[in-house]
Amino acid sequence: MIPNWLLQRAYLTPHKIALSFGDEKWTFVQLKDRALTLARKLSANDLNEGDRIALLGPSNAEMVFVIHACMLAGLEIVMLNSRLTEKEIAWQLDDSGASAVLVFDGLENNVAQSNVQTLLFSKVKESAEEPIELQEQWESDRTLTIMYTSGTTGFPKGVRQTVGNHVSSALSSVLNLGLAEDDVWLCAMPLFHISGFSILARSVLYGMEVRLYEKFDAIQAAKEIQTGTVTRMSVVALTLDKILRELEKKDAVAHLSFKTMLAGGGPVPVDYLDRAQNRKIPVLQTYGMTETSSQTATLAASDAIRKIGSAGKPLFFNQIKIKDANNAGDKGEVLIRGPHVTPGYIGRFIELDPLEDGWLPTGDIGYFDEEGYLYIVDRRADLIISGGENIYPAEIENVLAAHPGILEVGVCGQEHAEWGSVPIAFIVASGSLEVDELTAFCEERLARYKVPKVFRFVDQLPRNASNKLLRRELKEWTGLK
Amino acid sequence: MIPNWLLQRAYLTPHKIALSFGDEKWTFVQLKDRALTLARKLSANDLNEGDRIALLGPSNAEMVFVIHACMLAGLEIVMLNSRLTEKEIAWQLDDSGASAVLVFDGLENNVAQSNVQTLLFSKVKESAEEPIELQEQWESDRTLTIMYTSGTTGFPKGVRQTVGNHVSSALSSVLNLGLAEDDVWLCAMPLFHISGFSILARSVLYGMEVRLYEKFDAIQAAKEIQTGTVTRMSVVALTLDKILRELEKKDAVAHLSFKTMLAGGGPVPVDYLDRAQNRKIPVLQTYGMTETSSQTATLAASDAIRKIGSAGKPLFFNQIKIKDANNAGDKGEVLIRGPHVTPGYIGRFIELDPLEDGWLPTGDIGYFDEEGYLYIVDRRADLIISGGENIYPAEIENVLAAHPGILEVGVCGQEHAEWGSVPIAFIVASGSLEVDELTAFCEERLARYKVPKVFRFVDQLPRNASNKLLRRELKEWTGLK
Repeated sequence: MIPNWLLQRAYLTPHKIALSFGDEKWTFVQLKDRALTLARKLSANDLNEGDRIALLGPSNAEMVFVIHACMLAGLEIVMLNSRLTEKEIAWQLDDSGASAVLVFDGLENNVAQSNVQTLLFSKVKESAEEPIELQEQWESDRTLTIMYTSGTTGFPKGVRQTVGNHVSSALSSVLNLGLAEDDVWLCAMPLFHISGFSILARSVLYGMEVRLYEKFDAIQAAKEIQTGTVTRMSVVALTLDKILRELEKKDAVAHLSFKTMLAGGGPVPVDYLDRAQNRKIPVLQTYGMTETSSQTATLAASDAIRKIGSAGKPLFFNQIKIKDANNAGDKGEVLIRGPHVTPGYIGRFIELDPLEDGWLPTGDIGYFDEEGYLYIVDRRADLIISGGENIYPAEIENVLAAHPGILEVGVCGQEHAEWGSVPIAFIVASGSLEVDELTAFCEERLARYKVPKVFRFVDQLPRNASNKLLRRELKEWTGLK
Repeated sequence: MIPNWLLQRAYLTPHKIALSFGDEKWTFVQLKDRALTLARKLSANDLNEGDRIALLGPSNAEMVFVIHACMLAGLEIVMLNSRLTEKEIAWQLDDSGASAVLVFDGLENNVAQSNVQTLLFSKVKESAEEPIELQEQWESDRTLTIMYTSGTTGFPKGVRQTVGNHVSSALSSVLNLGLAEDDVWLCAMPLFHISGFSILARSVLYGMEVRLYEKFDAIQAAKEIQTGTVTRMSVVALTLDKILRELEKKDAVAHLSFKTMLAGGGPVPVDYLDRAQNRKIPVLQTYGMTETSSQTATLAASDAIRKIGSAGKPLFFNQIKIKDANNAGDKGEVLIRGPHVTPGYIGRFIELDPLEDGWLPTGDIGYFDEEGYLYIVDRRADLIISGGENIYPAEIENVLAAHPGILEVGVCGQEHAEWGSVPIAFIVASGSLEVDELTAFCEERLARYKVPKVFRFVDQLPRNASNKLLRRELKEWTGLK
């Protein structure tokens, strides 16, 4: 049994700041009051203990109130990605079997294709309040959230994340990152992704302030990191780069109190890590996914330099191994075990066991070095096999990201009659670039078969709401003119 | 399932300092190597997975190696109090059903009355090593340690403390106290008490250094607190007072990096808290016991001044309530629930359920104030009922402790023909004191019926190995001339 998060937290540290958004701040007891009022209004809309509700809206303060309201009311929350198409949303709503979908005003059209009952947020707020019975304690295996896998590969599956999953993730994280009385975590990740939601979970479990942005804002984030109003932040490579550029413009460095830049969603180019070091930003590369309720491995600050590029070691309560690997350096699929791993899916995949022999197969390729540090090489689905050689797109991206004229780069395989597949690079350039020069740049740094056969200049790369590169979509581009 | 503590920790942060004792230091991987060697030697002495072993020895580095060796070997450890009499030890060994007792050299005579197989530590160290099979993961309900309740009241019962108990205690604690990369916890508590053992558990779970003293040393502790070589420490009122006296002598204050003085084992006199504040020592009063694997409630640093004298609020995963209390301020027996509460006893009390309706009755009297802060008034067994009035010894002790001529004070009830019982005070004075003056001092500050009817001057007070006052023994003194 785990205490009801917000009830317990509002009891323990009622007057600590729980949330800040724009110029507004809420303490934990204020957050509880907001959430409780909304929970009673949800009850008036026939949503009660054990029901499943889908949420569609922006990642703002009201969404935080709604999420906590649903948890207080004992609802299972299907977190819908607000960037999905109508069709995708209708599919997920249908698959999830949600009793209703709560839609923030202005997004009504996005659920028009669905048959599920729609509750407009402004209407819910106007509802009367009906008394609800609060659970003081939660079962550890209660499903708290359901997130459809981001769809960077394959078919979307509704992943169950239990109270125990979220709690063990947050606790493992605190043993890894530490915790101080004055910690403030900057959340510029969507709350419907585990990267964002896990920050809310840490907030109530730790009694820590979340500084929430509705959208990522490099200028504002750089300013807060420089002045010390935030001490931790979650990023992906792209957003890290943008913050670094802001700091570099002003020749500024992070405030002494800034402790952790948690970088997930794929490998961070070595060049970015060097630049972050110059800006006094401790970047901790992390490796996690929806199925593991966030972080599963993280590179400790003390190893950041020595093991640059590694995803570190598993967090204390987790275990990681490489399938069929016998020795350090052997590459293979990454397998994960621990209390943070999902017990399973809902909907169409409800019968699918996420585990094989007790381990979660991730579809990612990685290896351990001699000291037991994990290196994620690439997603197995993204592997380019060219003339029998394995090529990892991230390796090529790392090289090109260091080129001064390149802002962003994504690499994938393109079908090729002779080699099966060859690498192709999509580039967002800061000015004009010559293909010959790029080829030469790569040839100096990569084996010949790894050098992209094609360079395409584009205005932007396909990314999901967490700014994670969508290589699957990139692959579709290879077929376009 | 929980990862084998030391294996996982030695993998995650092999080169961090795990332990320092005197001038020596050991990293986690060195600690593992030491423990593993000893575990193999225990195996050569026929101690294997699932067996129960009793340990009798000082709280030194070798004891830490032995404790970890036993955990690696999968043994259940009965932690024997080295200050017990031969008879008491024989009773506990018999009750515990231990396969063997490992005795440090020089303490052989203390187990002479027992029939349990004795292993002398020096002999074990000379044994050959036999290979053992290490468990990578532990069941959460595995019994790790057994501690006989300190015996401040009633009959000693062997309390089971599981992996899950210790882990949830350490995790709750970290959410309460925070954690920094450079934390060092000074352990001057006996390792056979939960106050000491819990520091070892935190060390492996957090990856934190333990600075171990075989015996409490006020001069050395004050020095380390002043220079910042330690950042946290566990004390009882008496040892806190001694450290304060050392700092006061030199007009010194704690180093800025010193974060937590965790004060348990009974209420700390208000006067000590004021003095600690002057020495810049953040005292966090805590409330816990063997049956809850250490801390169950703690007063946060931010509340230390405002709620002086309170034991704070429950830690995040715990719950506390007052039996039959309806309102704030209602006094009654303190009841505890949570993952840190023992599943039960061994030996003679194996059938005794420690819980009543799911809650652990503590035998302590307390109340919650309007804001939900817990105040422990006294142990129920120590309550003095005088002419129908409840008198809490601690209240009187608090008053007398503030008297400049008093070093230590213990109060208990003495049988009285007219009143049933009356308070009597035992005093360790720094010089000569007049009874009349003490009576007047009390009369100014306490209701008449609470003023001790007798003051007895003694050289020292009866205390257990954690320096906790033994009021039961004090009570026996009241019968003596």
